[in-house]
Amino acid sequence: MTQPRATHDHVVLAHGGGGELMGRLIREHIVPRLDNPWLAGLTDGAVVPWSGDAVVFTTDSYVVTPLEFPGGDIGRLAVAGTVNDLAVMGAEPVALSLGLILEEGLPLAVLDRVLDSVAATAREAGIAIASGDTKVIERRTAGSEAAAQMFINTAGVGRRRPGLHLDVARIEPGDAVLVTGPLAEHGLAILSVRAGLEFESTLRSDVAPLSGLLAAVFATGAVVRFVRDATRGGVAGVLADIAAGCGQSVEIDEHAVPLSPTARHAAEMLGLDPLAVANEGKCVLVVAAADVERVLAACRSHPLGRGAAVVGRVTASQPPLVELLTRAGGRRIVQRPYGEDLPRIC
Amino acid sequence: MTQPRATHDHVVLAHGGGGELMGRLIREHIVPRLDNPWLAGLTDGAVVPWSGDAVVFTTDSYVVTPLEFPGGDIGRLAVAGTVNDLAVMGAEPVALSLGLILEEGLPLAVLDRVLDSVAATAREAGIAIASGDTKVIERRTAGSEAAAQMFINTAGVGRRRPGLHLDVARIEPGDAVLVTGPLAEHGLAILSVRAGLEFESTLRSDVAPLSGLLAAVFATGAVVRFVRDATRGGVAGVLADIAAGCGQSVEIDEHAVPLSPTARHAAEMLGLDPLAVANEGKCVLVVAAADVERVLAACRSHPLGRGAAVVGRVTASQPPLVELLTRAGGRRIVQRPYGEDLPRIC
Repeated sequence: MTQPRATHDHVVLAHGGGGELMGRLIREHIVPRLDNPWLAGLTDGAVVPWSGDAVVFTTDSYVVTPLEFPGGDIGRLAVAGTVNDLAVMGAEPVALSLGLILEEGLPLAVLDRVLDSVAATAREAGIAIASGDTKVIERRTAGSEAAAQMFINTAGVGRRRPGLHLDVARIEPGDAVLVTGPLAEHGLAILSVRAGLEFESTLRSDVAPLSGLLAAVFATGAVVRFVRDATRGGVAGVLADIAAGCGQSVEIDEHAVPLSPTARHAAEMLGLDPLAVANEGKCVLVVAAADVERVLAACRSHPLGRGAAVVGRVTASQPPLVELLTRAGGRRIVQRPYGEDLPRIC
Repeated sequence: MTQPRATHDHVVLAHGGGGELMGRLIREHIVPRLDNPWLAGLTDGAVVPWSGDAVVFTTDSYVVTPLEFPGGDIGRLAVAGTVNDLAVMGAEPVALSLGLILEEGLPLAVLDRVLDSVAATAREAGIAIASGDTKVIERRTAGSEAAAQMFINTAGVGRRRPGLHLDVARIEPGDAVLVTGPLAEHGLAILSVRAGLEFESTLRSDVAPLSGLLAAVFATGAVVRFVRDATRGGVAGVLADIAAGCGQSVEIDEHAVPLSPTARHAAEMLGLDPLAVANEGKCVLVVAAADVERVLAACRSHPLGRGAAVVGRVTASQPPLVELLTRAGGRRIVQRPYGEDLPRIC
């Protein structure tokens, strides 16, 4: 067998081979950062104590480039994204798994920073990384100047909150549509870095775990019909899903959509509709009209919901469409994004 | 925005963009194959009904090349591998998540075959694919002749079986060490295809879900101390973990190790130790000596355990080592594989 090359500061194929070198990667780089009793045993999985009648179970893979960006990195994204998928289903996140696919040549210093970020975001969200796996793939382009990449999959299990009935089919005309803060900041931050644009330094991704914010909303007892985090496809994609799912229309007031001046400027320069750009720390809520003030107050009292706003309403207009009432006083149909706008955004 | 290229038969970046094209990929290619009520809603996750006091939770990513090989493909591997991680922990597998990372240019026909294989293996193991996610990454080497790749992550949740106490620390001198059938067939099948060797046509991967076999073993009521599937690092890796974990030595009889003549020949030609080669449908069991016949009979009565054999025993010899009693009457130390032998084997 050939001997592995020097492994002081970069990932090599042998780190994924199931042998001694892989054991060292796991013991020295991964487990100390994610320290918890489930991982310490290095068994094939974790035994997570459980009460309740259901497990909410979800998965997401993350392939974002660059791996580190203003406001976050792939590690924070991978934890927050899956925590948010559980939270918008009304679950209390309990544990995540962490599947790493590392490209040969990845600096161990980058891996360590990403793992530190995974650990910090998991603490912020109050969940444990209960199970993990590491694979190494060959360098994709030999001799390439491109940075070595990594992909992360996180799956999550959460406990269903009793008494919540989130279901797109329960949405009714008259319901209010809210977003939890200024839009488009994740996608615009990533694209600005890639394009080398000037506002690179001021635009930051909003990536954050929303479990605490949503727990505060659910604790109000308000009638919340539906929640969805507005990631790939942005708010436009969520609204299209809502119209298709409940068979009603949605009307959005452009003037009410929260958007920072920097984000507005960046979206204009990049030729993007902020409604179609990915967020990683914002969600859309559909709430019974009578409860909208309670929900808005709960959002605004949480650090991640200070910029929450009512942006529109559900109407009985047929066929079911999403319409934007523009600042200029016109109307335009909001389409579901086709899909090629923003590759590798998450 | 640029329009996506023709998408009749290959994956394009827009398939991962969160828009209409991605919706079609999911509705037309993925959901119909994995059909079950959890996936049909296309929500952010699945609500899996639960009873019992614990969730056994595990994850694994799969990066094998080639994607299709004699005896299986990456889809069968991804389902069987995670089912087996749950099964060796003594859990009854309940649901898996499926995270797909597709390289631009992957033929949709390959994706469809892999998904059919995921579905068939899930049915064989009696579990549901409860939640999924799809990402698309750029073609890794522009203009490359290399086939486009895909990576799969599966996480799994399982129900802990009451009354089982699998723990490497419970292993005692005198315990018997079993394997559930002929070794090394997965790794040798993969390597033979890569090397274009003649036995390519007769060597087949053993990839299979072991949940049924292990359920039959546990149902005997035998005292089973520890089970581990012998994947990366092979049986040698598992035995090294056992010696390190329980602080006792393990003695293996080379003549008792089940190995097909084809596998023996292939391992010799490739210069590999069959004990260090990956299996994907075999596990190592450590069993109280008094119960070994019951466990052997239960294995042999199951289609996936017909070739089960007692291969050695735990001894009090110190320091804790794994020793092979060779056919020639000698002794050699079995080392934990270092890790570079078999990249991208699973």
